[in-house]
Amino acid sequence: MGLVVQKYGGSSVADAEGIKRVAKRIVEAKKNGHQVVVVVSAMGDTTDELIDLAGEVSPVTSGREFDMLLTAGERISMALLAMAIKSLGHEAQSFTGSQAGVITDSVHNKARIIDVTPGRIKTALDEGNIAIVAGFQGVSQDKKDITTLGRGGSDTTAVALAAALDAEVCEIYTDVDGVFTADPRVVKKARKIDWISFEDMLELASSGSKVLLHRCVEYARRYNIPIHVRSSFSGLRGTWVSNQPQGDQPMEQALISGVAHDTSEAKITVVGVPDKPGEAAKIFRAIADGELNIDMVVQNVSAASTGLTDISFTLPKTDGRRAIEALERAKASIGFDSLRYDDQIAKISLVGAGMKTNPGVTATFFEALSGAGVNIELISTSEIRISVVTRKDDVNEAVRAVHTAFGLDSESDEAVVYGGTGR
Amino acid sequence: MGLVVQKYGGSSVADAEGIKRVAKRIVEAKKNGHQVVVVVSAMGDTTDELIDLAGEVSPVTSGREFDMLLTAGERISMALLAMAIKSLGHEAQSFTGSQAGVITDSVHNKARIIDVTPGRIKTALDEGNIAIVAGFQGVSQDKKDITTLGRGGSDTTAVALAAALDAEVCEIYTDVDGVFTADPRVVKKARKIDWISFEDMLELASSGSKVLLHRCVEYARRYNIPIHVRSSFSGLRGTWVSNQPQGDQPMEQALISGVAHDTSEAKITVVGVPDKPGEAAKIFRAIADGELNIDMVVQNVSAASTGLTDISFTLPKTDGRRAIEALERAKASIGFDSLRYDDQIAKISLVGAGMKTNPGVTATFFEALSGAGVNIELISTSEIRISVVTRKDDVNEAVRAVHTAFGLDSESDEAVVYGGTGR
Repeated sequence: MGLVVQKYGGSSVADAEGIKRVAKRIVEAKKNGHQVVVVVSAMGDTTDELIDLAGEVSPVTSGREFDMLLTAGERISMALLAMAIKSLGHEAQSFTGSQAGVITDSVHNKARIIDVTPGRIKTALDEGNIAIVAGFQGVSQDKKDITTLGRGGSDTTAVALAAALDAEVCEIYTDVDGVFTADPRVVKKARKIDWISFEDMLELASSGSKVLLHRCVEYARRYNIPIHVRSSFSGLRGTWVSNQPQGDQPMEQALISGVAHDTSEAKITVVGVPDKPGEAAKIFRAIADGELNIDMVVQNVSAASTGLTDISFTLPKTDGRRAIEALERAKASIGFDSLRYDDQIAKISLVGAGMKTNPGVTATFFEALSGAGVNIELISTSEIRISVVTRKDDVNEAVRAVHTAFGLDSESDEAVVYGGTGR
Repeated sequence: MGLVVQKYGGSSVADAEGIKRVAKRIVEAKKNGHQVVVVVSAMGDTTDELIDLAGEVSPVTSGREFDMLLTAGERISMALLAMAIKSLGHEAQSFTGSQAGVITDSVHNKARIIDVTPGRIKTALDEGNIAIVAGFQGVSQDKKDITTLGRGGSDTTAVALAAALDAEVCEIYTDVDGVFTADPRVVKKARKIDWISFEDMLELASSGSKVLLHRCVEYARRYNIPIHVRSSFSGLRGTWVSNQPQGDQPMEQALISGVAHDTSEAKITVVGVPDKPGEAAKIFRAIADGELNIDMVVQNVSAASTGLTDISFTLPKTDGRRAIEALERAKASIGFDSLRYDDQIAKISLVGAGMKTNPGVTATFFEALSGAGVNIELISTSEIRISVVTRKDDVNEAVRAVHTAFGLDSESDEAVVYGGTGR
């Protein structure tokens, strides 16, 4: 039996009962002969409460001090979890990100891991302890300041530790049974995926699936760490994310992994752009200078009579205002007529390996949408993904139609749903 | 203008308003040209809430993990305070005990400081920052584990940093105006003491005065760091504790510093102890083996006819049960008849320099008690203190009588009282 890294999110340790339930599950793994490293998030609403407090004393809720504040959250949950495990008669020690050797860059609030030196964790394991590590946090390499890793930080901590400790598997415990072929709240017949490749999981994550974040999957793929996403409530086998089906995992792999949707983006259309080389570059330079990330980009066919074209792109709604401002500032140098902002859109993505080499897939996808009376506004494709932008009102019907068209519907009528997912 | 260390207790930073008020006071000191290091406790009830949470997940609320848990409290308050200062346009950085170089032994929950290496604090100050340091916590020298300093820990952190940084003064901000000649809740005419020597302050602290704890004063005396105890609400000049009156402090020093009382102790009488060498030693070895601290000790005159004597001592009520158990276990080897336990006692102490050389002091003290009809059960004296044990019910009257007899009553009728004091 080898080393297992388990990660528990905030909803799994929301209160004393949750902490005690998780402690029992951890002790089980230890009793089964594993060395166990646990990564834990802050309890339930702790982080939100700290953010509220910060808002009461300062208009600026970011930077070094904000990280110092937020990291108190995991400190509380990890210490309580260690105490709960000890009360079950097993030895446990908790470690901050810094103590666990999670070394990051100095970008506060969204630091990136640049090294993991888990010497103290190894010692704790060798001495027979269960090691509890604070997720979401690290220490900056140059200034030795406490940093936080931003969204999906705890999952990334878990995968990074699994890689550094050469773990057998990184188990991500959450409040759903695994990764589904579509969001079970939208598609009642969505099926739990038993196994999915890193690549397909990356595409699903970029396309709106919220169970695992892109960043964590990317890290796992780079170091080839199998991830097992499963419920901390049910104890059932969940979804394995890895290079290839392993051991008792089913060898068959469906061509199509799943359907993802995303309603968190907005569309900006830059109207009346001179259709000559370099114009698009100016637009995206203005966006990049504002440190804004864009998703899909489409340039319309130019109307030959005017020599002008329209360029549309999507980006997170939360960045919408800043993107509009950045473009307005650069209006003179870029040269365009006007901007259109539309936040009533949805993105629907079909993800599966070998899609490009199966022309029928694209046809079936569009036929399904058309059959459901859904209009397509933008299209973007990759090797293993097709995404379209539609009206937001059409999203549920569109996802269901595509899910059925690709034979993803389960036999049973109802998927098991436990609620939303944590960070 | 030199370096000032300011310490704010939990009641001063109990909520966002408190934190903003304290931030303004800190910025004032900075504007006056001082380098400022601030030591801060956890917000209001945070520590109690964490203790409650711990109790919900584990019956054992002590040790390494408990320290990890509790130190989250100061992490929150210090980060918020730094953010509040920054929002006032000044630079501030917060530091954990570990980052501030507070090195301790490995005794969790009541660690002792063994070294302070404030390199990062000095750098922060040199760069123009206000440094905010978590009180009550450190890091163990051998294991690099997070420790807490126990009762009075934040005050001790402040004094230790003041010593290591060669500060001009260590200002202890609290919710009362300073140290008084008696507890103002008992003696309405109690006066604020403008200046008091380290030695007298030590005696007052050991005798029940709760504004400063013995441990912190002892540290300040060893490194000769003047302490200024003052209110974080009123901004008035408080009480200076130092080697000798300095600068604009009044040079006159009253013979008597004040009257302290303490109702937190109990009295144990060991009845029928063989009156021969070594018997008392056996009793106090049994107590010491239980890691229990005793305060006053009195051996009664032996009754020649029996060859037996009684030995009485006082100790904190919280240790009473364990002391009785330790003595019962050692009963056979010590050889005594029975034990008497009495928790309805009070200790009243008169503190002042040169008391021993003024025989009139003792006489006046006892006359005052006798005049108030207060019976004396035990007596203990030092160079600068006389303490007596009386019935608990007599304590207020006894304190007032002694306070008046030594001319300590103020002209005005009412002392200013803001409430109890924090840890």
